[in-house]
Amino acid sequence: MDEKEAPPLRRRGERMRQAVLAATVDLLASQGMAATTVAAVARAAGVHETSVYRRWKTRENLIFDALAHHSDHALPTPDTGDVRADLTALFTALARYLATPAGTALLHLGTVRGEDDLEEGRRSYWSTRLERAEALVRRGIDRGELATDTDPHLTVEAVTGPLLARVLLTGEPLEETLVPRLVDLVLDGARAPRRQDRRQDRPDGS
Amino acid sequence: MDEKEAPPLRRRGERMRQAVLAATVDLLASQGMAATTVAAVARAAGVHETSVYRRWKTRENLIFDALAHHSDHALPTPDTGDVRADLTALFTALARYLATPAGTALLHLGTVRGEDDLEEGRRSYWSTRLERAEALVRRGIDRGELATDTDPHLTVEAVTGPLLARVLLTGEPLEETLVPRLVDLVLDGARAPRRQDRRQDRPDGS
Repeated sequence: MDEKEAPPLRRRGERMRQAVLAATVDLLASQGMAATTVAAVARAAGVHETSVYRRWKTRENLIFDALAHHSDHALPTPDTGDVRADLTALFTALARYLATPAGTALLHLGTVRGEDDLEEGRRSYWSTRLERAEALVRRGIDRGELATDTDPHLTVEAVTGPLLARVLLTGEPLEETLVPRLVDLVLDGARAPRRQDRRQDRPDGS
Repeated sequence: MDEKEAPPLRRRGERMRQAVLAATVDLLASQGMAATTVAAVARAAGVHETSVYRRWKTRENLIFDALAHHSDHALPTPDTGDVRADLTALFTALARYLATPAGTALLHLGTVRGEDDLEEGRRSYWSTRLERAEALVRRGIDRGELATDTDPHLTVEAVTGPLLARVLLTGEPLEETLVPRLVDLVLDGARAPRRQDRRQDRPDGS
């Protein structure tokens, strides 16, 4: 074996990981959750079943990792200069994704249950995604659209929490008007306006 | 058997149900989740195991029902005349309950997974609880504290969604300041004040 030609072990490992994750996403999309077994994934990716188990331990971990990886392509990172428009665009895309079978499965597989050693991976997955959305809120603060003491983390949670809770607990649909209404509520507040109709302050005059 | 003395079948069924649920809650509290098996519950309640399975089908359904039943006693229904105080009191109690092992288990067992025929029971459990909280928001609208076009359902979701998402997904703690900050965000909004510091409008002047 030519040492110069051989890819470093890490790179081969990463290439194997990408092939397995891509095969998992393909199988989920074409055959559905039940047909996405470790055996079927290994066959499609051209790797040994034992290699898959060595890396992911369980079928659930594999599918979560594949969906988590895949979801990043489904979400935009809008930067229109208007915090209301940015938040509405990002979270509308999130709501549409969560309403798909892949998005719903991602949420269920991503719940923290203290069951396995990949728990930390699940938690950090959600934290990273929340932080990305927080950047949009921070830009709104910097532009003077939001109060200077706005908590970006809390603001993102107040809009995303209801979406996650609907999918996981109540089963209520994520209708198209839900995200715009949530963004309006969190930006404008439910409190009755005092001096004048607060809505007249809104840049779009709506 | 004296017909006059015999309780109607429904009442006996309800009495059996209450005994089994009480035994389940007792076992959960004293022995923990793993020890709360159908066999142990049946023994403690003095009923046949088969009666438990006939009614609840699975151990998970039984534990969910017991916790759901129990949780109602943990939550107050405040009516202080101030919507901010009412929402803060109710949801602080909810957050404290969700942070307990029983509360966390209730959330996990209560997720909608399309797996069994008690799904509808889970969904309606959450809907009923949300509706109770909505009554607090409606009183705030009636008193003129909240804008007349406030959506009570959405308002409750914006405060509770983040609590549920933290327990189920991110594993972030439900710190004591979380609920007051969420209630403030949802009532006051994150938008920058235009004419004067909006916080000066707040009844408590904080």
